[in-house]
Amino acid sequence: MSSSLGTLFRISTWGESHGPGVGVVIDGCPPRIPLSVEDIQQELDRRRPGQSKIVTPRKEDDRAEILSGVVDGLTLGSPIGILVRNTDHRPSAYTEMQQAYRPSHADYTYDAKYGIRAVSGGGRSSARETIGRVAAGAIARRVLEKSLPSYQTLAYVKTVQHLEAKVPAELSSDLIESNIVRTCDPEAAERMIELIESVRTQGNSVGGVIECVVRGVPAGLGEPVFDRLEADLAKAMLSLPATKGFEIGSGFAGTLLTGLEHNDEFYIDPAQKASNSPVTGQPSLGIRTRTNRSGGVQGGISNGEDLVFRVAFKPTATVLREQKTVTNTGEETTLSARGRHDPCVLPRAVPMVEAMVHLVLVDHWLRQRALCS
Amino acid sequence: MSSSLGTLFRISTWGESHGPGVGVVIDGCPPRIPLSVEDIQQELDRRRPGQSKIVTPRKEDDRAEILSGVVDGLTLGSPIGILVRNTDHRPSAYTEMQQAYRPSHADYTYDAKYGIRAVSGGGRSSARETIGRVAAGAIARRVLEKSLPSYQTLAYVKTVQHLEAKVPAELSSDLIESNIVRTCDPEAAERMIELIESVRTQGNSVGGVIECVVRGVPAGLGEPVFDRLEADLAKAMLSLPATKGFEIGSGFAGTLLTGLEHNDEFYIDPAQKASNSPVTGQPSLGIRTRTNRSGGVQGGISNGEDLVFRVAFKPTATVLREQKTVTNTGEETTLSARGRHDPCVLPRAVPMVEAMVHLVLVDHWLRQRALCS
Amino acid sequence: MSSSLGTLFRISTWGESHGPGVGVVIDGCPPRIPLSVEDIQQELDRRRPGQSKIVTPRKEDDRAEILSGVVDGLTLGSPIGILVRNTDHRPSAYTEMQQAYRPSHADYTYDAKYGIRAVSGGGRSSARETIGRVAAGAIARRVLEKSLPSYQTLAYVKTVQHLEAKVPAELSSDLIESNIVRTCDPEAAERMIELIESVRTQGNSVGGVIECVVRGVPAGLGEPVFDRLEADLAKAMLSLPATKGFEIGSGFAGTLLTGLEHNDEFYIDPAQKASNSPVTGQPSLGIRTRTNRSGGVQGGISNGEDLVFRVAFKPTATVLREQKTVTNTGEETTLSARGRHDPCVLPRAVPMVEAMVHLVLVDHWLRQRALCS
Amino acid sequence: MSSSLGTLFRISTWGESHGPGVGVVIDGCPPRIPLSVEDIQQELDRRRPGQSKIVTPRKEDDRAEILSGVVDGLTLGSPIGILVRNTDHRPSAYTEMQQAYRPSHADYTYDAKYGIRAVSGGGRSSARETIGRVAAGAIARRVLEKSLPSYQTLAYVKTVQHLEAKVPAELSSDLIESNIVRTCDPEAAERMIELIESVRTQGNSVGGVIECVVRGVPAGLGEPVFDRLEADLAKAMLSLPATKGFEIGSGFAGTLLTGLEHNDEFYIDPAQKASNSPVTGQPSLGIRTRTNRSGGVQGGISNGEDLVFRVAFKPTATVLREQKTVTNTGEETTLSARGRHDPCVLPRAVPMVEAMVHLVLVDHWLRQRALCS
Repeated sequence: MSSSLGTLFRISTWGESHGPGVGVVIDGCPPRIPLSVEDIQQELDRRRPGQSKIVTPRKEDDRAEILSGVVDGLTLGSPIGILVRNTDHRPSAYTEMQQAYRPSHADYTYDAKYGIRAVSGGGRSSARETIGRVAAGAIARRVLEKSLPSYQTLAYVKTVQHLEAKVPAELSSDLIESNIVRTCDPEAAERMIELIESVRTQGNSVGGVIECVVRGVPAGLGEPVFDRLEADLAKAMLSLPATKGFEIGSGFAGTLLTGLEHNDEFYIDPAQKASNSPVTGQPSLGIRTRTNRSGGVQGGISNGEDLVFRVAFKPTATVLREQKTVTNTGEETTLSARGRHDPCVLPRAVPMVEAMVHLVLVDHWLRQRALCS
Repeated sequence: MSSSLGTLFRISTWGESHGPGVGVVIDGCPPRIPLSVEDIQQELDRRRPGQSKIVTPRKEDDRAEILSGVVDGLTLGSPIGILVRNTDHRPSAYTEMQQAYRPSHADYTYDAKYGIRAVSGGGRSSARETIGRVAAGAIARRVLEKSLPSYQTLAYVKTVQHLEAKVPAELSSDLIESNIVRTCDPEAAERMIELIESVRTQGNSVGGVIECVVRGVPAGLGEPVFDRLEADLAKAMLSLPATKGFEIGSGFAGTLLTGLEHNDEFYIDPAQKASNSPVTGQPSLGIRTRTNRSGGVQGGISNGEDLVFRVAFKPTATVLREQKTVTNTGEETTLSARGRHDPCVLPRAVPMVEAMVHLVLVDHWLRQRALCS
Repeated sequence: MSSSLGTLFRISTWGESHGPGVGVVIDGCPPRIPLSVEDIQQELDRRRPGQSKIVTPRKEDDRAEILSGVVDGLTLGSPIGILVRNTDHRPSAYTEMQQAYRPSHADYTYDAKYGIRAVSGGGRSSARETIGRVAAGAIARRVLEKSLPSYQTLAYVKTVQHLEAKVPAELSSDLIESNIVRTCDPEAAERMIELIESVRTQGNSVGGVIECVVRGVPAGLGEPVFDRLEADLAKAMLSLPATKGFEIGSGFAGTLLTGLEHNDEFYIDPAQKASNSPVTGQPSLGIRTRTNRSGGVQGGISNGEDLVFRVAFKPTATVLREQKTVTNTGEETTLSARGRHDPCVLPRAVPMVEAMVHLVLVDHWLRQRALCS
Repeated sequence: MSSSLGTLFRISTWGESHGPGVGVVIDGCPPRIPLSVEDIQQELDRRRPGQSKIVTPRKEDDRAEILSGVVDGLTLGSPIGILVRNTDHRPSAYTEMQQAYRPSHADYTYDAKYGIRAVSGGGRSSARETIGRVAAGAIARRVLEKSLPSYQTLAYVKTVQHLEAKVPAELSSDLIESNIVRTCDPEAAERMIELIESVRTQGNSVGGVIECVVRGVPAGLGEPVFDRLEADLAKAMLSLPATKGFEIGSGFAGTLLTGLEHNDEFYIDPAQKASNSPVTGQPSLGIRTRTNRSGGVQGGISNGEDLVFRVAFKPTATVLREQKTVTNTGEETTLSARGRHDPCVLPRAVPMVEAMVHLVLVDHWLRQRALCS
């Protein structure tokens, strides 16, 4: 079940890059959630090719069709099927690859695993697979927003190669969407765009780090032991193409602190005492931490602070330069990719990161309702 | 199902720190695997308290009993139950904590989630829970070794706070076990021990990074999309107590390279052509990569190179110093932990990391057998 | 996850009767299995409406489209998506039902569960949902046939109301398909057809029993304890619409025998000693039983004899006569269904029963390969 | 995962008949449920050997120990481990069986599946495995009773071979427990006891049918499509040793009715209008059916009527008479069981049936809370 995720809100994505289409089935979505195809399309538009000059110029409209599970703008509680037809096939661009394995791509490992693969467009290993995730994430978000009104997930590009954004005190979706890199620092954005255009011209690529802040998550989500919130987030992020690392809260830098420096002091915030916990229905004690080195999770369970984590994306493996490699018959050769590529995946990866957050949280939210409502 | 992990080789751990005992049930272990209680005990001894001067001096023998699933030294294919009785209860040490939440521990979040918790010894959030994992990991290792003779997992302490070990060309279990820190650099070990003893004296704590190298994994393990090998490893590692980060191959540092610098060139190693793949049974083409920035995984699937990853452990939250906190009735207070603690969890975390690797890989190995044998 | 089934060969069906379409995603199908859309269409044609004078005259072509997972007639190991567009909507026929609950249908219970439902065509509770099962079953069958050459599943109508077929010594697919009832007794078929046409004329309906014989299942499939082969078959059959009972081997009648009468004696069949077990790869001992009151399963595991079981189908709930019922606002009323209905579901249920057998067995076959190959 | 059951309330049983012990881990039990070891012991006492003259005279006290998950009489939300030590081993009684396969037992199929088995006491195929189920069922029952005050499951022996009990209008636990057969008809009980003692004297055995009535299940439990309530009940029942059939409501006899005769008319019961649905929290409309041929389930979902189903148990396979069989080396031989056996499993199967009902319902109850609370 390589293509399914979730315990209660369970998604199954399907589709090859150059087959008839890609999509997803969501099994376990609660009934009576307001949902329109526009809710989904809006997120797909943030991940689609051709949206700006720094992403791949491929032309794919990526129009979603809701096949089931929704009537008159409300979910039914039955599986929601979503289909996006593939439109931009150029199988000829892949002829050479039928033989030669692209370095740091999945061509060789698919053959090693399955003894067969869909060569054209990268088949199942193409980033088009994430269309299903982003569509499902849009639905997960609606479910969460209905129960947790202050829920908000904001991902943004923190670094592109050596260029780092300053994170302002006031983060907002508008700020992040104000530039085509999707960073929270308009000034850094310009330098990042320049860098990305420069490497594109060279047929090269760059990577970077996406940071994500999640607000409005009540204390009590996540399961101790294996299905810890940070463990499920780590898995979700490392399941995205091109990711090489995940850290939450203080992360790797936190290993340089002592325990006394690292611990998050608790205090009482009287302003929060008024509200009821959506998890327990009981009045909140107003417990907060003064710092957030924990990244919003303690013992695998959310503590009511913002979730804060970072994901490392390697430079795109597709580069338009000659590289040494081997063929599927075991001979050494060289390969030069041609055509269109993303010189930097990060701008389009921002909505993917957000979608995975929605998917992880909605599942834990439903699990918590089962356990303790 | 917070306490279960795995699709085919599925483990369920159970037990509170100061209850009758802790243990695990393994459901899905193949039959006819040679297994003795010593195989398990040996790994438990590497994680138990009191094994050296730099870990907690608690006295727990942690003797394993195999309750089922094994007859005459061979597994039956039926569930294997393992029980370790708890022996060192000191409930009195926890009286104060019934009220006050220990900073950066799971006391508050357990209450927020469940509305109840086993106060004594940290209950389920205690690191004693990992006994079940380490025991199950020892069994998973036997299964893998039977099918993959060159399989070997070597974890070691890479850094303690700012002190970093040099990784030699020749890694071995003997080298790592030659010092009580479990690092691969005997010289650094001395400085690390000094540092850990120093922070212990101060009632403080330190963290660090564990690196892990896995050899003998054939190409073809791992599933594309959600159950990628690196995603499942990330989840497994982030499910260990005190972890804050995971990176594979080039990791976060890889974001500073360009695609041309980062890609791993393929070549043919004639020496490997002789062997048959344990995944497909077909003769190997001898495909290798010259560098290993991928960390042994491409497109979520192992490529036959060593798996290489790192895990960040925060400094132990238990510090023997007065800290500000709040009570479970919502009042601010201070708390001073007393007694025994691990000033640095890393030496005892090494066998935990290895156990989680065994568990992730055995599950993917069985899944691959189902799919392609 | 109401709409997913299977551990390794996992299917997720989706779709409402009068929405855009219905379909299925199969996650976990092994690679390199020969598969064409005709393999699927052939089975769909056996379940579709309008195929004969004794089933509903609705016009639905039910043309399948393979959306993913297959290239050049071979499965890829990636998810297989299948879509069948709905074409024959007549929402007007359901206006009345928006208010009144049809007796012994799922209208009321869907509302009780979800607080919402797709009224038109019965929505998700329509037998159109089984299209996805039959399509997935056709694929499961191909997987089984590749590994188990003598595998064959033959379901047939055993009784229609009080009319019972004689089961001949020589069963075959041709015999069963030789009549529109899909019974194995051409003489009984005529009386059954007469009965079905008679109740249809009266706007009434009848039920009956389908028997199923599965050949070529090697000893060793099925898991003791919960996932027994008979338990998974029972669940699969009782998950079909209109089913009320399941029995295997001697079934309910077996409760009238004593142990001495019921036990199946073992003997050695020298003719079978030649072959190797596809489960263990070891030479067969030629162990057989002289009788088969066990129905091919002992201790939850297949013993190499034919699987033999029976499924009870109630008379169709849709009858074209006035019935007393209530509205969704809690008032008593009467309701007269109009239009087209299946006076007897059994002829179209035969391929559904077979599909569920394929799905149960392929999953256990893959699980066995994982455990013991 | 042959030994695990459930999606949210998930149990894993373990243990061989003559190993150190048997038990269960329950993962997913909600917190703050009152639970004592006596709650569990009470049910175990109903299934243990030696409780009356018509069951096996083996001496096993079957004392349960709660190893985890409960503190001060309340569940913690963490896994509950339960251990029952085995005490009555007589390995010598099984020497002969190491060679000869007992007819209609699981000896042969275990060997065919695993290539190894625990011979003594039947190992994992022993009915001792059901101890874990009965213990877990007792906990499930407590969870249900806390949320659904009128919940009650009553199983009873309906027939022993050809002897049938009359089911009175007023069923009660006291009535059923008033006789050692656990039937609801004291007069029939005497004849049944006589029959069982008679076949025991002859070294023979008998089977029969258990009927089960479940009250207080609100409308809305169960999932359409695969996890239908009747499908999950069928699987649960067919997973019990010695079962050959399951039917719900009208069952096999219902196939003799026409649709008009079979359908359950709806009506409004004003007396029920007062109450709120525990599923939706909304006021009930008072919808009832006049008959209950549906057996309390429509479209896979409970409709608020009593669940009513029947389970067929074959005559015990162990008979103390010489039978023809084969050895594990493929030679024909004869075998005479000696010693102690249950001449009729039904009296001890009654608490097993009830336990499985609790387990199925608690899982669906938690799933419903997740979906719709």
